[in-house]
Amino acid sequence: MYYIGVDLGGTNIAAGIVTEEGKLIKKKSIPTLRHRNYQEILKDMGELCLTIIKEEGISLNEVASVGVGSPGTPDPENGILVYANNLKFKDVPIRTELQKYINVPVYLENDANCAALGEAVAGAAKGYKNSVTVTLGTGVGGGIILDGKIFSGSFYGGGEIGHHVIVADGEPCTCGRKGCWETYASATALIREARIAVIRNPESGLAKLVGGDINLINAKVPFDAAQSGDPVGQELIDNYIKYLGMGIANVINIIQPEIVVIGGGVCAQGDNLLNPLKEIVKKNVYQGTLKTELRIAELGNDAGIIGAAMLGK
Amino acid sequence: MYYIGVDLGGTNIAAGIVTEEGKLIKKKSIPTLRHRNYQEILKDMGELCLTIIKEEGISLNEVASVGVGSPGTPDPENGILVYANNLKFKDVPIRTELQKYINVPVYLENDANCAALGEAVAGAAKGYKNSVTVTLGTGVGGGIILDGKIFSGSFYGGGEIGHHVIVADGEPCTCGRKGCWETYASATALIREARIAVIRNPESGLAKLVGGDINLINAKVPFDAAQSGDPVGQELIDNYIKYLGMGIANVINIIQPEIVVIGGGVCAQGDNLLNPLKEIVKKNVYQGTLKTELRIAELGNDAGIIGAAMLGK
Repeated sequence: MYYIGVDLGGTNIAAGIVTEEGKLIKKKSIPTLRHRNYQEILKDMGELCLTIIKEEGISLNEVASVGVGSPGTPDPENGILVYANNLKFKDVPIRTELQKYINVPVYLENDANCAALGEAVAGAAKGYKNSVTVTLGTGVGGGIILDGKIFSGSFYGGGEIGHHVIVADGEPCTCGRKGCWETYASATALIREARIAVIRNPESGLAKLVGGDINLINAKVPFDAAQSGDPVGQELIDNYIKYLGMGIANVINIIQPEIVVIGGGVCAQGDNLLNPLKEIVKKNVYQGTLKTELRIAELGNDAGIIGAAMLGK
Repeated sequence: MYYIGVDLGGTNIAAGIVTEEGKLIKKKSIPTLRHRNYQEILKDMGELCLTIIKEEGISLNEVASVGVGSPGTPDPENGILVYANNLKFKDVPIRTELQKYINVPVYLENDANCAALGEAVAGAAKGYKNSVTVTLGTGVGGGIILDGKIFSGSFYGGGEIGHHVIVADGEPCTCGRKGCWETYASATALIREARIAVIRNPESGLAKLVGGDINLINAKVPFDAAQSGDPVGQELIDNYIKYLGMGIANVINIIQPEIVVIGGGVCAQGDNLLNPLKEIVKKNVYQGTLKTELRIAELGNDAGIIGAAMLGK
């Protein structure tokens, strides 16, 4: 049997066909055009699923299920997307709407949880029963896998590891609190701090890398500055990794998974990120004994599709 | 069948007989005399178990198991107490040693986890599958119950919720980090802040309650001062509850249990603590929707004995 996974994003809808082993064998994406009503968007999603089935030359009878990973707050039990801010969705019946076009079991989950499941089934956390995947992007997304299954608390609202305060009364967070981990460990946070550093240090190597234009700063720039020997860049990276490691140690002290997987754009830095991070986490875990492995994510953007597909397995 | 639970503390060893329903029907305690070697201490523990069986008039055949709740780092799988600072225990084979005196299955767990299991089986979290019990004492102890069972991570080192940083670079913690939740939310933290407040405000109602003697301050004093209308006392309590609630909201955002139970000496304040705490937690949980219940612990010191007993069930 095959499993279809759909990654519903604010910009694109990506769908893929995944084997029982979690291998992505076909992928296609279309623009979400999110200003439309949900009926139109879900019609496109259903047709996209049928298209990839047809193009791959398999029959609908060979499709076990469709899994959808969505932003916002899904209700997995009832297949309803309760709320998704960037899609302007409120109580959208994903399952019943999608089944109008493709009549197989439909599963729904949070996209960060899907990415974590993807990495657990076929990526960096393959072979581990308990893992946490942290995605460093606009925010800090998190997914907890316990005993091979997504753990999202008692009311599907857990796993929001990016929203635990590590700096009381700190930077304002989009969630309304102050000092959430994501306001220090997301790519957005690193870019914010780099912009401030450029303004404060206009003669620094960091500032020169972007010709003084703070709008040209992305998460890679401060790493590049640090590697070129710029002390301003190095301080930024040291601070970023300090806060990233602090939050990871917090999560380990509470959940202690076998492995923490680091995903998102920032993880392109590979060992430049991972090695100093391990040192920080080691110093910060309870009793100084780090038994949890740390590893860079392996599946990139495919993690969400693969994990969504595996919801039906 | 009956289940024996033992709470191994630095001062006393308490043992009790517990029914299948989690009811404590007999309890007795002896001094630990912790400067002795482990063989002597465990001999006393074994004899204490035999004594309560005899006094209760039941036979050894009716005892299903003995469970021991210990401080420090137990290895529940092998029944070994890997490390307990206040007992000077290192790799002590609790199971095999205790079985020399009472030959039934012996289980070992962290004492905070036992207290959480006790509250889940027979106390404030009875009837809930997923709960977190927070014990506010010298430190902040924590126990996580998922699906009715103790959850302690992949290597028995999880559930250390008191040791997640909420104030980066904050107050020094006994664990070596800075700004752990327990340095703001323990009874010890409240007493520390109250002492500082007395020194700073020698004319306050708080200071008058203890005649200016900071050594007379316990966790009840600042609550008493607040209730008598002293603004210094009120500020202390407001701040204490702010940090307590911040950490509880963090735990809920990550684990989202059905219920959080608050135990330890501070919880004697009842609604004076619980009502303002609920307000803070509600404001701080992700998306502002608090589905998790908050409740005061019901079993007091018996929670540890009952939970330890229920390890064998």
